[in-house]
Amino acid sequence: MQIIKNESIDQIKTRIRQQTSKTIDPIVASRVENIIATVREKGDAALKAYAQEFDGVTLNELKVSAAQIDLAVKNVAPEVIKALEKAAANIRSFHQLEIQQAFEDSPRPGVIRGTKITPLSAVGIYVPGGTAAYPSSVLMNALPAKIAGVQHIIMVTPPQKEGLNDAVLAAARIAGIDSIYQVGGAQAIAALAYGTESIPQVDKITGPGNAYVATAKRAVYGQVAIDMIAGPSEIGILADDSARAKDIAADLLSQAEHDKNARAILITNSEKLAQAVSDEVNVQLKTLPREDIARDAIDNNGFIYLVETIDDMIDLMNAVAPEHLEIQLENAYDYIDKIQNAGSVFLGKYASEPLGDYLAGPNHILPTGGTARFSSALGVWDFQKRIQYLSYSQDALLDDADDVTVLAREEGLAGHARAIEVRQS
Amino acid sequence: MQIIKNESIDQIKTRIRQQTSKTIDPIVASRVENIIATVREKGDAALKAYAQEFDGVTLNELKVSAAQIDLAVKNVAPEVIKALEKAAANIRSFHQLEIQQAFEDSPRPGVIRGTKITPLSAVGIYVPGGTAAYPSSVLMNALPAKIAGVQHIIMVTPPQKEGLNDAVLAAARIAGIDSIYQVGGAQAIAALAYGTESIPQVDKITGPGNAYVATAKRAVYGQVAIDMIAGPSEIGILADDSARAKDIAADLLSQAEHDKNARAILITNSEKLAQAVSDEVNVQLKTLPREDIARDAIDNNGFIYLVETIDDMIDLMNAVAPEHLEIQLENAYDYIDKIQNAGSVFLGKYASEPLGDYLAGPNHILPTGGTARFSSALGVWDFQKRIQYLSYSQDALLDDADDVTVLAREEGLAGHARAIEVRQS
Repeated sequence: MQIIKNESIDQIKTRIRQQTSKTIDPIVASRVENIIATVREKGDAALKAYAQEFDGVTLNELKVSAAQIDLAVKNVAPEVIKALEKAAANIRSFHQLEIQQAFEDSPRPGVIRGTKITPLSAVGIYVPGGTAAYPSSVLMNALPAKIAGVQHIIMVTPPQKEGLNDAVLAAARIAGIDSIYQVGGAQAIAALAYGTESIPQVDKITGPGNAYVATAKRAVYGQVAIDMIAGPSEIGILADDSARAKDIAADLLSQAEHDKNARAILITNSEKLAQAVSDEVNVQLKTLPREDIARDAIDNNGFIYLVETIDDMIDLMNAVAPEHLEIQLENAYDYIDKIQNAGSVFLGKYASEPLGDYLAGPNHILPTGGTARFSSALGVWDFQKRIQYLSYSQDALLDDADDVTVLAREEGLAGHARAIEVRQS
Repeated sequence: MQIIKNESIDQIKTRIRQQTSKTIDPIVASRVENIIATVREKGDAALKAYAQEFDGVTLNELKVSAAQIDLAVKNVAPEVIKALEKAAANIRSFHQLEIQQAFEDSPRPGVIRGTKITPLSAVGIYVPGGTAAYPSSVLMNALPAKIAGVQHIIMVTPPQKEGLNDAVLAAARIAGIDSIYQVGGAQAIAALAYGTESIPQVDKITGPGNAYVATAKRAVYGQVAIDMIAGPSEIGILADDSARAKDIAADLLSQAEHDKNARAILITNSEKLAQAVSDEVNVQLKTLPREDIARDAIDNNGFIYLVETIDDMIDLMNAVAPEHLEIQLENAYDYIDKIQNAGSVFLGKYASEPLGDYLAGPNHILPTGGTARFSSALGVWDFQKRIQYLSYSQDALLDDADDVTVLAREEGLAGHARAIEVRQS
């Protein structure tokens, strides 16, 4: 791993900004537009044709039957089912804390103002196929939607020549998802956004996918809501001499193994630790099953920044705005207040990031690519909306009438003023 | 106004869906891409060149000086300042109810899970120019951001040959915005998303604009957050025989006067009211200063749907998902529970929609074009993000280790399993 030292904080920040600047591939964008138009025009027939063309699978039915799900559940090892159920319980208990409360006030007699909270009606969950078919992500997507009160949760996942992933179907069953359709890529996003004969239109689409999925989500944004446009996984670690190089190297590699574009960043004030982690990453890489992917990620986007103080370490990490942030410092909990930008924070040497990926309860669908500057983990709030309401008595209206008409006329909107004035007579 | 009767609820829903289907203009999209690339490359020089080309204004400085704002405040009539200050107080007191609380739990010894709430660092507010320069929108955008704790609120507004709108600058002063730049259109959105020499990069861009602004917001979405892609104004009214045709006609026209593509919809179970409103709209149109705009809106997108029951009325209105919804029924408050899709609801015959546009406190930046299915009024939550955190003791880690490694290996991610295993020894 490359160790960067003797650079100023500002130099490093510029380097970090350049690493996360986003561009859209116009060729992918144009193909995606074409796929979306075809799905809107031809519906299920287009989805089946794409399954043949892109996935090499002939489908009679898009929908996965209850019998198929039953069979899948039986094929999954009991210890996996048990672990998924434990994870589901923890995810539920954490996300229940996120439920939002309606509110109402009456600032003066005759006026009532409030906001009600209501779930979205239908949500679509995208679950990737192949080696990126993760049952844990099914739970992380679906359970907050369930807790929010969403009535219709529809899952889509690409058809596979060898059949769908059993554990993914088992996770869907545990999460209470009954509607699963075999459709992937941009065509799945189009189907969820506009509906087809068999797939209902949804209000929001969540879940990660490849470049086609991400580009399609951007294209249908506004027609439906989307959670985010997800990029490669990331981990940032703040550590000093109190941390163990073995732990840090393993945690960096746990994200590096996801994707050759994954980012793994250590920021430390210890030259000794920097060197030890760099060495340990090389040692651990050699015995990692996904060595090739992880090595590419470390070579391309693995950096150790050596700076002088803990304050500088935190300042830089806020500029990184990592998806996952580990704080391996003494009294890690005390640093939470200083963290401005991160998706999910892991405190202390035992809170290894994979605990959050699988079991502890906080969500693992998180902002990437620096977007933690302005966005948050997937949560119950993603599946609810807020409807304002207002009630006025006649007296209250008369009290406020002049101020409203003054502002309406100032803005050149006489019709707005008139709506008040017709009620004054 | 066209009265639609003797259609089934399903027929009307299909009609409504067709009215709100969205498409992107590829010519606008291509011009916007070009403008964004130019601003990223040339910065302030590009912004000044566009001011010359699109707005016909030669700018030495992009930033509006404090002296300019002082002068503008003096030019605004005292009753307008008073009304803006009253509006600001009401907007503040309502949005203070939206502040979200952090939470933390400890599900078992050694495990701490929580979420902290933190404001975005910098936000950009787009304020249209010309006849759509609305001081009320400045308050509605900026005050929730202030309450959320945003440190840097940057306003952009197109340069005007006759100078910027005094009331807009006065509203900015009242809202506590100090950084105002004369830049509009797609170039303003590009500047806020990527930063230039004089305009700082922001984390989120809010506020409505024309097709170029909306398309640019879509293009930079992901680089920064955006509030929504706003469309023309809308009003939906539920009314029965207890309502007055004059009030309803005035309220329908108050939205119709905004834009020739505005939507104005009445759903009623009273044929008498339907006819009376249709007649009254024709009468009121003749004396409206913005008659031409409002008449186009009413002709294109003004509909009265006549159905049999109040339940059918509500069901249909939920399919419309209007930006503004008035319930002019007896005991209007009792119907809130049945409203699933609307931006902001106005209850009873005296809660005329312009009260919400200007004075009452709930936000007037609302989802349009049916997007109230999945999105909400602008609020404090738009300017905050949530950062999850997790702490584990060594014992807690050992307890959960097997379940984590089982799931990691099931997903083929041995590196994830190893991050746990290195801590077991």
